[in-house]
Amino acid sequence: MTQLNETHAPRLTSWVTSANNNSDFPIQNLPFAVFRRSGSDEVMRGGVAIGDQVLDMAAAAGAGVFEGEALAAAKAAAQSSLNALMALGPDTNAALRLALSRALRSGAAAQSSLANCLVPQAAVEYDLPCRIGDYTDFYTSIHHATAIGSLFRPDSPLLPNYKWVPIGYHGRASTIGVSGQTFPRPVGQTKAPDANEPSFGPCKRLDYELEMGIFVGRGTALGERIDIDAAEAHVFGLCLLNDWSARDIQAWEYQPLGPFLAKNFASTISPWIITLEALAPYRSAFERPAEDPQPLPYLTSDFNTAHGNIDIQLECLIETAQMRAAGEAPARLSSSSFRHSYWTAAQMLTHHSVTGCAMNPGDLLGSGTQSGPQPEEAGSILELTGGGKRPITLPNGEQRTFLEDGDSIVMRGYCQRDGAARIGFGEVVATVLPARV
Amino acid sequence: MTQLNETHAPRLTSWVTSANNNSDFPIQNLPFAVFRRSGSDEVMRGGVAIGDQVLDMAAAAGAGVFEGEALAAAKAAAQSSLNALMALGPDTNAALRLALSRALRSGAAAQSSLANCLVPQAAVEYDLPCRIGDYTDFYTSIHHATAIGSLFRPDSPLLPNYKWVPIGYHGRASTIGVSGQTFPRPVGQTKAPDANEPSFGPCKRLDYELEMGIFVGRGTALGERIDIDAAEAHVFGLCLLNDWSARDIQAWEYQPLGPFLAKNFASTISPWIITLEALAPYRSAFERPAEDPQPLPYLTSDFNTAHGNIDIQLECLIETAQMRAAGEAPARLSSSSFRHSYWTAAQMLTHHSVTGCAMNPGDLLGSGTQSGPQPEEAGSILELTGGGKRPITLPNGEQRTFLEDGDSIVMRGYCQRDGAARIGFGEVVATVLPARV
Repeated sequence: MTQLNETHAPRLTSWVTSANNNSDFPIQNLPFAVFRRSGSDEVMRGGVAIGDQVLDMAAAAGAGVFEGEALAAAKAAAQSSLNALMALGPDTNAALRLALSRALRSGAAAQSSLANCLVPQAAVEYDLPCRIGDYTDFYTSIHHATAIGSLFRPDSPLLPNYKWVPIGYHGRASTIGVSGQTFPRPVGQTKAPDANEPSFGPCKRLDYELEMGIFVGRGTALGERIDIDAAEAHVFGLCLLNDWSARDIQAWEYQPLGPFLAKNFASTISPWIITLEALAPYRSAFERPAEDPQPLPYLTSDFNTAHGNIDIQLECLIETAQMRAAGEAPARLSSSSFRHSYWTAAQMLTHHSVTGCAMNPGDLLGSGTQSGPQPEEAGSILELTGGGKRPITLPNGEQRTFLEDGDSIVMRGYCQRDGAARIGFGEVVATVLPARV
Repeated sequence: MTQLNETHAPRLTSWVTSANNNSDFPIQNLPFAVFRRSGSDEVMRGGVAIGDQVLDMAAAAGAGVFEGEALAAAKAAAQSSLNALMALGPDTNAALRLALSRALRSGAAAQSSLANCLVPQAAVEYDLPCRIGDYTDFYTSIHHATAIGSLFRPDSPLLPNYKWVPIGYHGRASTIGVSGQTFPRPVGQTKAPDANEPSFGPCKRLDYELEMGIFVGRGTALGERIDIDAAEAHVFGLCLLNDWSARDIQAWEYQPLGPFLAKNFASTISPWIITLEALAPYRSAFERPAEDPQPLPYLTSDFNTAHGNIDIQLECLIETAQMRAAGEAPARLSSSSFRHSYWTAAQMLTHHSVTGCAMNPGDLLGSGTQSGPQPEEAGSILELTGGGKRPITLPNGEQRTFLEDGDSIVMRGYCQRDGAARIGFGEVVATVLPARV
C-alpha cells in the first residue's frame, strides 16, 4: 500500500480544471463519499471528489467507461452505502482508482462520457459513507493520554499498560453523523468534587476531540486474526473524526468500565474517505523513542517500522454563533499531525482482532485525540485550557473554557510536501445546540 | 406493560399439546426467534415457540388467520430479522400476541389453517433474531460489582458512583452469536503481577458471565431522551446472554478506558426473545436497601418503584468435553435471579438515552452478570473460585478454576410461581474451542 504508481504522479492533471489548483481533491486523491443534490429526494449514491465536483458513480458506472474489475468496483461505489465497495479489497479498489485516474486525466477520451456525471460539491448534501456496524475508539496519542491522565489521575497520568497495549474501547455507532451534524448539549449526572451527591443537568464541560477515523475494508470472520503484515489490506481509507466528549459526565461515570454516556451522544465524521492508496506518498517510518519498549512481536513488522506512519496535518477551528453572525472566519484552536500517533493504523487493527474479533467492512476505528507534543498542539479544549482553568481568548475577544451553545467546531486535514500532490481530507463541521430540558 | 389480560390466563391451553405440560413455551409465553430447518438452505424467517414446535410466521402470515394490526405485525415477524417487528411498538406487538393466543388456543378455528405451519424445534436451526446495531453491557448486580471489584481493586471494591449511576459500557456487536456458537479461546496480552513485561498467548482465565439481554423495540432519534415512564414502551423483550470474558486480558488492558479485547471475541444469546408482555405476571416492586441513596429523579417513577423488578430464575451449567463423551448431563454451577439487579430495565434504557443517544430497534442491552447475594449465586467462575484460587470440583471429579477447551456453558432462565403459567427462556449454549496459535 506504499507502492507509488502512475496514479500518484505529481504532474498529472485533470480535465476537471478545479482539481489542478492546489485543491484538496486533485486527481491523485480520488476519495469516496455518499451524496445527493441538496434538498432533493434523489437516492443517495456514491461519488468521487475531483476538484470542486463530485463524480456521480451511479451515473459513471453506466457511462460505458469502466470494464472488468474496475466496473465491478464502480457498481459497488454507486450504491447508497459503500460497504460493498469496501468489502472488495485493495486489489479491486486499486483497479477502480487506476481507471478513475485514467478517465479523469487531462485529454482522456472518457471526458465526453463523464462530463455530465459531475455535480458541483457546493450543490450536494452528504450521508454517512457506509453502514458502520461497530465503532471503536483508540487512544493513540501519548501526549493526549498524558495530558488527560494528569487531569483525571494526577498520581498516575500514564498508566503502566500504555506503551504496550493500543488502548481502545468500544463506542456508540448509532450517533455517528456526517459533517453538518447538530446535536443538543447532552444532559446527565455529574458530581462536583466537593459535593456529597451527584446532580443532574446539562453538561458544563463539553469538548471536542480531533481524531482520524479508519474505515475497515475487507472483513474477517469470528475467530480470525489479522496479521500485522496483512492489516493494511483490511483498511479501506481514512477520514476526519470529531469525537465529542462530555468531560464532567465522563469524570463521574468512567470508573471502572470506561467512558459511556460521555461519548455516546454524537460523533461526527468528514464525508470523504481518503483511500490508503492515495496516502502512499506520505508514509514514513514508525519510530519509538529509544527508551520506550518495542511493541510485542504481534504488533511488529519490518513494513510497519519502515512505513507505518502517515503524516496527515490536522487543524481544529472554532466558529462561535457571534463569529457566524458577524461573518468572521473560524478561528484556529490548534494544529497537530497524525504522525504523533503512538500506534499505527495497522497496529490498531491487528490488536483489535487478535482475540478473533470479527471485523466487518465499514467498521470505524477512531485514532483517539491526536494531540502533538507541544501544548498548543492539543486536540481537545480540555487540554488547551488546562482542564478548564485557563480560558482561551478568541480573535473577536470571546473567551472559552469549554464549548458553548451555538459553537461549531471545524476540523481539516491534508497531506502536503514538495514532490507530491496535496491530498486533502476536506473538513468536518458540527454544531452544538442548546440542551433540551 | 404489567396489565394482565386474557393472554396471561393460567388456565389457557393450546391445541399444540406439548405446550400444556410445564413447557418453557406455553401459550402464555409466545416468544419470537429467527429460524429455518436445520441444514437446509431455506430463507431464515421469524417463528413463535409453542410447546416443542415453532410456528413458522412466514407461513402463518399467509394463512388467512390474522387481520388488521395483527396481520401487519405477523408480516413483520415473517422477515429474516425481527427489527421491523420490534419497531412497531408495544400496541401492535400486543395485537399480534392476542391474535396468536386466540389462534393457538385449544378449540381455535385457526387450528386447521395453522397446523401445517408448525416445525418441530428439534428440527430447526436459529439465527440471530435481529440485526444488532449497537450492544451495550451494564453492570447492574451490586453483588457481582462488589465481588469483582474486590479482586481487581481490593482497596475500593465498590466505587462511589455505583449506587448513583447505572454503570455500563459499549460492547462489540459483530461477535454476538446465537446459542450453539463456538469460538476459539482468545489470545492476547497479559501481564503476571510479578512480571516486568507483558506476555502474549492464549487466555488462561477464560470466564462466562450470566446475564439477561434486553432488546430495544421502538427506537428514538438522536437528541431524544426516553422518560423513565415511557421506557418500557421501548423494550421489545428479553433473552439470556452469556458475555464471555477473558479475565487476564481484562486485568491488563482495562485501565483507563474499560474492557475491550477481554470482551470482544464472543457473546452468545438465546434464540428466543420473551416479550415484556409475557413477563407481566412476574413483575414486582423495585426496592433499594433503606440505607442506600434513592435514584435521581430522572431514574425514578412510581411505576418503576411498584413494578420495576422481574423475577427471572437463572441457572448456569457446565458440560465438559469429558462429560459430553460420557453422555453425562451438564452440571450446575450456580443459580440466581434477575430480581437481584440493582437497576431495572427501564432505568438502564432511560440512563442510556439521557444524553440524547439514539436507540434503534434491535439494539441489545446486557444487564451485566446477575450474581445474587450468596457466594453460590455468583454468575461467573471468577467469583465462584475466588479469583481462580479455589477450584470447583464437578460431579465427575474434574476440577475447574477457569474454563478449559471443549467446555460448554449452558444458561437457562424461567419464571414460575403458583397462579401463573411458567414462562421459560429456553437456553443458551456455547462452546470454547482451542486457541488458534
